[in-house]
Order: sequence, then C-alpha cells, then structure tokens
Amino acid sequence: MNGLMMQKQLLIPSLIVHADRHHGDTEIVSRRVEGDLHRYTFRDCHRRARQMANALTSLGVSASDRIGTLAWNGYRHMELYYGISGMGAVMHTINPRLHEDQVVYIANHAEDQYIFFDLTFLPLVQAIAGRCKAVKAFIAMTDRTHMPRDSIIANLLCYEDLIEQSSTAYTWPIFDEDTASTLCYTSGTTGNPKGVLYTHRSTLLHTYAAALPDALNCSARDVILPVVPMFHVNAWGIPYVACMTGAKLVFPGPGLDGKSLYDLFEAEKVTLSAGVPTVWQGLLGYLEQNGLEFSTMKRTIIGGAACPPSMLRKFQEDYGVAVLHAWGMTELSPLGTVGAMKSRHMEMLPEDCYAVQSKQGRAVFGVDVKIVSADGQELPWDGVTSGDLLVRGPWVVRNYFRNEGGSPLQIDGEAHGWFPTGDVATIDADGFMQITDRSKDVIKSGGEWIGSIDLENIAMAHPAVSQAACIAAKHAKWDERPLLIVARKPGAELTGEQLLAFYEGKVARWWTPDDVIFVDAIPLGATGKILKNRLREQFGDHLLGEPLS
Amino acid sequence: MNGLMMQKQLLIPSLIVHADRHHGDTEIVSRRVEGDLHRYTFRDCHRRARQMANALTSLGVSASDRIGTLAWNGYRHMELYYGISGMGAVMHTINPRLHEDQVVYIANHAEDQYIFFDLTFLPLVQAIAGRCKAVKAFIAMTDRTHMPRDSIIANLLCYEDLIEQSSTAYTWPIFDEDTASTLCYTSGTTGNPKGVLYTHRSTLLHTYAAALPDALNCSARDVILPVVPMFHVNAWGIPYVACMTGAKLVFPGPGLDGKSLYDLFEAEKVTLSAGVPTVWQGLLGYLEQNGLEFSTMKRTIIGGAACPPSMLRKFQEDYGVAVLHAWGMTELSPLGTVGAMKSRHMEMLPEDCYAVQSKQGRAVFGVDVKIVSADGQELPWDGVTSGDLLVRGPWVVRNYFRNEGGSPLQIDGEAHGWFPTGDVATIDADGFMQITDRSKDVIKSGGEWIGSIDLENIAMAHPAVSQAACIAAKHAKWDERPLLIVARKPGAELTGEQLLAFYEGKVARWWTPDDVIFVDAIPLGATGKILKNRLREQFGDHLLGEPLS
Repeated sequence: MNGLMMQKQLLIPSLIVHADRHHGDTEIVSRRVEGDLHRYTFRDCHRRARQMANALTSLGVSASDRIGTLAWNGYRHMELYYGISGMGAVMHTINPRLHEDQVVYIANHAEDQYIFFDLTFLPLVQAIAGRCKAVKAFIAMTDRTHMPRDSIIANLLCYEDLIEQSSTAYTWPIFDEDTASTLCYTSGTTGNPKGVLYTHRSTLLHTYAAALPDALNCSARDVILPVVPMFHVNAWGIPYVACMTGAKLVFPGPGLDGKSLYDLFEAEKVTLSAGVPTVWQGLLGYLEQNGLEFSTMKRTIIGGAACPPSMLRKFQEDYGVAVLHAWGMTELSPLGTVGAMKSRHMEMLPEDCYAVQSKQGRAVFGVDVKIVSADGQELPWDGVTSGDLLVRGPWVVRNYFRNEGGSPLQIDGEAHGWFPTGDVATIDADGFMQITDRSKDVIKSGGEWIGSIDLENIAMAHPAVSQAACIAAKHAKWDERPLLIVARKPGAELTGEQLLAFYEGKVARWWTPDDVIFVDAIPLGATGKILKNRLREQFGDHLLGEPLS
Repeated sequence: MNGLMMQKQLLIPSLIVHADRHHGDTEIVSRRVEGDLHRYTFRDCHRRARQMANALTSLGVSASDRIGTLAWNGYRHMELYYGISGMGAVMHTINPRLHEDQVVYIANHAEDQYIFFDLTFLPLVQAIAGRCKAVKAFIAMTDRTHMPRDSIIANLLCYEDLIEQSSTAYTWPIFDEDTASTLCYTSGTTGNPKGVLYTHRSTLLHTYAAALPDALNCSARDVILPVVPMFHVNAWGIPYVACMTGAKLVFPGPGLDGKSLYDLFEAEKVTLSAGVPTVWQGLLGYLEQNGLEFSTMKRTIIGGAACPPSMLRKFQEDYGVAVLHAWGMTELSPLGTVGAMKSRHMEMLPEDCYAVQSKQGRAVFGVDVKIVSADGQELPWDGVTSGDLLVRGPWVVRNYFRNEGGSPLQIDGEAHGWFPTGDVATIDADGFMQITDRSKDVIKSGGEWIGSIDLENIAMAHPAVSQAACIAAKHAKWDERPLLIVARKPGAELTGEQLLAFYEGKVARWWTPDDVIFVDAIPLGATGKILKNRLREQFGDHLLGEPLS
C-alpha cells in the first residue's frame, strides 16, 4: 500500500526558486575575470537563470543536450548551473586545467552542443575550437565591451547578449527526478577520463546531506567562499547548498593566491570556506608573512587530498578556524565522509583529538561504507585493519557515461552493488574512516602493506620540506620498498640522512623509506593531485641496484 | 535521458542501520512507566527492532497492516517505530488523550491488527478492547513481571516475551519508497479524525530537512530530549533525526512535570529539546521556584501553539536557552517553518529581534508556502497582508486515508495542488510567516487541540438548547479554554452547571468547557454560519479572571 503524500519530483530549479523566494535579498559576490567585483542577489541570479534557459531554448538546446563550461567560480557560472540543468539539459563542467587533448576528448565524448567559457580560457578555446565536433558555438562569458576581437573562433557568441535578448518569463519544466542534470569527468589518472552523470534526485539528496550540521553546517547566517572550483565536482555542492540554506556566496573567480583570497575573506565577512590543502598553504603563508588574522572566518572544509596535520594545527591553534576533514570523489557527487566530532571526542586530550581529526571522517547519512579484504570479506572497524573501501548510496555512481569501462560495481551476496573507491582505508569503532593509500599507490613490502600517506605526512611536518611524495620502488628482495621524493622549501637545506632520521620514533622501523630523492617540484595533475604514476615511471627502479641487505 | 546514479530507495530502516553502524555506542535513555531509568544504545535498539520485526512476522503481520500504539516517549516505542515500518507494515500512533470513543473510531477506521500500549493506558485499553473490531491482540509494553493480572482483556500479550522469543537475525526488506510507513490521525476539529498516511520517502526527506542547521540543528554532539509526544506527529521527527545525526536520545516517559524534566535534563546533559508552550511553563515555573539553572541546555524548539513572548524572553535572557519557534501540522509530517534568524537579523536591536522570533518562521527547504486571497490570488510578502496559508511539498498530505473528505488540495493555474492549512497568516519580505488567526475556531488548550464543533454538537443535543457556539476563551494557564455560548429554547430552563454535567462521559474531561454564557441569540452570518469572531471579541476575556487551579 502506498502512502498518500504529495508526489513532488526533486528537481534542481526548486533550489534557486527557494533562494529567490526566501532569501531574495541575499548577496552573491563575484570577483570577475574582467577584474572588478560584481554584486547581486539570489533574486537576480534566478531572473538571469530564467533568461539563460530562454536563451538556450532559442539556440535550439533541448532536453538531455550536453552544454559544456570552462569557467571559474562566478555568478555567470552559477546561472548556468541552474539555467542548463533547470531546462532539462545537462550541465557539463570541464576542468580547464586539463591538457587540451583531454578537453577535446571530453567535449567530443560528451557531444557538447555549446561550450561557455571565461575569457581566461580564450587561448584554450582557440586551440580546441576546430576539434570539438558537436559544438555549434562557443559562448564567451562576458559583455559586448569585453568580447575578444579577431578570435579566429568561427562561431563565437556573447553571454550578456544572450541574456539581454531573452525574456525573464520562464516556467521551470517538471520532469522525472532521475533525469540527468550534470556531467563531470573523473581526472582519469589511468586511461581516458570517464563521465559521471548525476541526476536531479542525486543532487538534491546530496545537497540535504552536505548542508547538515555534521557536514558543511551551513545556515542563513553563513557567508561561504568556495575555493574548490565549480568545474571540480560542483564545488563540492556549495552552489546548491547556498540556495538551500540561504547563505551568502562569495566567488573568488581566478584570484586564488593568498592575498586575493584573504582580502575577499575579510571584505565580505566570509565565515566558511572549502578547498584543497594546496590553496590553504598559500593562504596561510600569506597570513604568516604579513602577521594577519581572520576576523570572521570560523570553519573550513579540507578535502581533495589528506590535510597535513601541521596545517590542521595551524588553522585551529594560530587562527581559531575549525578544520573539518572531508573525503569524497567525483563518483560520489562528491561527499562521502566528514570528520565532525562526536560527544565523546570533545572530552579527549587535544593530541588524541587531532588524531581523530586527521582521519577523513564518518559517512554522512545516505552513504554506506565498508572495507573488505581481497576476497571481498567485510573487515572489522577496529581502526587498524585496512582494506579496500567500498561505498553505496543514492548519490553514488552506478555506471559511467556511455557505459565506459562497463559496470564499476562489485555485487555482494545480497545483490546490492557497491562502488569500489580504489582507496585503501581503516575504519574505527566510531565509524571514522582513514585513507591509508590509493590501492594503486600502496607499497607492498615483503607481503605487508605500507601506506604512503602516513610517510608523506611525516616528511611534510619537517620544516625544510615543501612537498613530499612517497612511492613504491621496485626492490630485489622485498618486491617494493618506500622511496621518498621531496621538494625542499626555497633556501632550505636538508640531506636525505637528516630527513630519514626525522622518521625515528614516528613510525615502525621497517616503514621508514629506503632513500630520498630531491627534486625541484613534485608533478601535479589538473586537480592538484600528485602524479604518482609519473614518479613511479621516473624513479621506480631507483632501489634495484641496492644490495640485498 | 536518465542519469546514472545508484537507484536506492529511501527507506526508514536505513536510519537505524546508520545509527547502529556509525553511532552504535550512543545512548538512548528512557524514564519507564515502571518507574526506573533504562539505558541502552542505538545498537541495542536496532537489535531489538529486528527482533520485533520477527515477532510481528510470527504474529501474522504482513506488509501494509496497520499496528497501533498507545504509548509515551520511550525506547520500546522507538523500537516499534523502526520494527513496524521497517518490515513494511504501518506504524499507527494513537493519541491516548483522546476520548475513548475517538480512540475506538480511529482504531476501527485504521483497522489496526494489534495495539501496543504502555501500562499507564491499561484502563483505556480495558474500556476499548471489546470495540476494536480488527484487533487480534493487545500487547502490553512491559516484561512478564509487570504484566497486569485479571486484565479482562481477552487477548493480551507481553512485549518482552515477544522480543525474547524472536531471533535477532532479520534483513530489512527493500521495497518502493512510496510505500506507506506511518499513520497519524488529525485531531478532527471538524467531523471525525482523518488519517495522514506518510511514506518512507516523505519521512526520510522530512528527516533531512528537520536536521538542518536552520531547523533542529542536530549533530552527534547533541543530547535531545523530545517532550513532544511520539504519539503526536512522530515527536516532530526527532526519533528519525537522532538516528540520522547520531544524537543521544533521552525519553521522559510519562514524567512531564517540571521537576522530572529538569532532573533528567541535568543528569543526562540534554542540549536540545522540543515541545509545546504549556510544558515549558511548568518547567520554567519549577526552575524559578527553586532558583535553578540549566547547565547544558542550549536550544529548544517551541511549536504546537504560538509561544508567548514572555516565555521567549525568559528562556533566552534568564536561562541562556535559544528558542526556535516552529510551525507544522499533522498533514506536514509536521515541519513547515522554523524561525531561524538570518544574518541581517543578527544586527537588529533586541526588541526587533524578538518581533521576528515571535513569528512562526520561514519554510524549511522542501516546503513551498504562499498566502492567497479568498479568490485564490497570491498575496504579497509584506508582513502585513494576511491570507489563507497554502503549502506543498514532498512531505505534505495529498489525500487522507481512505480518501476521507475527498481531495483536500486546491489546484492552481499550473495544475499543482496546494494544501490549504486552514490557517490565516502574513509573510514578510524575509519569508517569515506569522499565523494571525487560527482560520477556523480551534481551541488550543495546553498545546492540545479541542474541537469546538464536537462540543457544540453535544450542547445541541440537550433538549433545552436552541443554539450553541463554542469559542476559545483566553486562559492564564492553558492559553485557551473552551467557553460555551448558548441560546435556550423558548421557555426552557437550564443552568450552566446542568449543561456542563451533560458532558460527562461524552467527552474527555479536559475537553469539557470551563463555563457557559447564555445569550438571547447567537449571531449568524449571511450564509447561516456562526460569527465566532464576534463572539470571541465579546466573550474572549471571560475566563481570564479565573484562578490558576
């Protein structure tokens, strides 16, 4: 017997409608590519999103068409989030930091009909324009005054012209909540990037979960500055969460250096931010060098990579900013776990508390997690046993776009599919998950597993180290042994022996890396992740000549 | 084109499974009817809910069967919330404060197969046992030692026996999320009570919304004591919210007096509570008389009736407890609006802030609200214009159980149904809604509703009565009490005392009007309806001089 409640589809436009009606005066502030600071309100955003939906209709866009974007965090990008998905088409955010061949591959694989771009990316667009087969036109996200001249792009349109020519009258269509809303490609460290196709339903459920007190904890009294890019898994859901909760939004555009961010944090009274460790390093460095403090900033979410414990302490002890460690993936929309404390953690000694905070956290409601052995048996939550991390839930991928790579799911006895994250993790009795490695980065030494992340964190805690990566180097006796690749801080002096001595007492002796190689810079991928494949190719044989001690 | 995310049904058991896995050690503490304090954990609760599901299966309960409860807030009631709905049957909470005829009507209308009851309600169960046609057995929520002797109930079972005899092995079935989960009857101010049949989906979505920072703001660091009864619209969703967020639960059982509540608040370190104004009056009175303070209590949600401004101030200024005003209905699961401040309110003068807090608040995301004129035109959100309050959303009723009363919805131009709340309200530019009138003539006595029409019908049944109207008269202790306005038949003799005596046995004692005023004629409108507004103007203060007995 069915219940008798209203059957309302969960659709993305309901978020901007809510923001308009209930928080119509709340601001969205954007640092523009054009250089200035732009201010308007949720009501304005909704009006222009409706105009954009009309413009897309005029351009012949119909339901399910993919529309690409190459853009920073800004209000026009926000309008596209709602205008494209809201009209029933598919918002396809492309990472502009990818190599142009990958951008072309992705645009062609998605069959993007139009691609919107910020002026920053004009050179990229010029390079790819002739190779994106389905694209009918490229649309520069600017006004007529700033339109590029002699761009060599055959079909170039102007964003503000499209808006201006379009009526504000638009009724968001109602359709099935399982309809595709958004397409994001994984960074594809192995093989081609694969597309994850979100639904209106998955997005709405994810938004509820992300806004919860033990996740982003977002209210109408917050001012959020998402440093995490809108081309990177929907800026972790913040453009949706802000509409759901009525928080003011501050978009940094291309200005992600310490000074630009700090100035915006202070001027706009930002209370909450989110981003990867690399960006925070720049911001904290700027504060330190200039003896500055935050006056309104209260919390930051750190994800995308493990947050070095030293950064965690600096934020909390020096600047009074609470750090929440979070973990997610493109395949998870992206939120999986957040490290919000429980009651009993609040009574712990600070040192023990930091140990808990250093973990990636516990599952937000909606996501199931488990760890399994190589033969698929569920492993205990004892904080020690590590295994392959599997997840499932209504905002977890079922299949990649065009069924690329076949079904990624592992089916267990109950015929429920689980998504294998490719991470290796422990889970403790409180449900706090800790990534010990990517499964492909684990160092298998004499049949035992050594987690590279712990070893990197120790190196990063050394004052002379700027960046560190630990890789599995082939070894004649032990199969694999840890090898440390390190970039020193400018001007710092440090020998391999000194750094290895730094490990004493911090880790089991057999976990200590065998050697250190100093480099000028660690290679990073488009989303800021260390390219360990490349390091393995370059340095994987480094230990082979060693004596079989 | 559909998206490619996992298709997971939103089902109630996922909440207790999550609580078990991620907050297994978190406590549920209950004041029992037996007198003692019971403590166990979410893990224990989940285990016993599975045992209960097995027990129900053994009793022959199948999917969609309705199972009634007459019970206080306690851990066994919690087990039934999950055991009954989780197995696919329908949890039907019955308000034990209703007159026994209404309880019988409701149990028969629902066709309850079994009714669980706390020992407090043995007399009620004895009175109705023979009249509930579908009930196969009544189940006393106690152990063998406390089972009533010579109860005269033909089929009486013991809760703990059922648990003990049942295996803990149970796999929650997976079914469509639109399946009925829970049945609550409205208090039936006009005509018979009507059933609202919630779904698993509506419950899960409501739980997400209720847990948000601008609603209950519930985290794993909270300790919640729901004073609002679990027989009253699912205790505003708290039994579900606690599982979603991992908050510790404290159930007060039948002990709702000031001292019992205060002792429990302090002993269990309660941070968050929720209830109607009357209960808080008792608690605040107790604190005042004994010079006490709260040591952990931070927030309370007040709903069910408008919170007197004096109470709001007392909580916040004298006791440092933040008050959130909320509004809802059985038809809304129940949450509609919550009075969480916005940024700009934080900069207001305290007096202006109180004026905002006195309103019922703004819609939680998921609920659409609007006010309309008599001819259905939407009215402006200016904080002044009042109109009929309409709502819609995925946890709003579509039809009453068995289609009682036909479709309650108003269809607007876009063919979307809106539920007319029966309330008259204003909405301001910030979306803050304020009820200006109970649209009809409901009498709210101590947070419970008393239907005026029932009381009028009884009066009208007296041979000496020509016309009768029952209005809400202001009352110092109970907020409102029923006052009867009567015109005698020509030549008939009747005193107030005689008429009130006529109510004995026909209605719950506390429903009996406080007084009778005789008039020559009841004022009627053009269509023959009683002009209650005019009566309230004339006689609304009649009971204010009464002692606070």
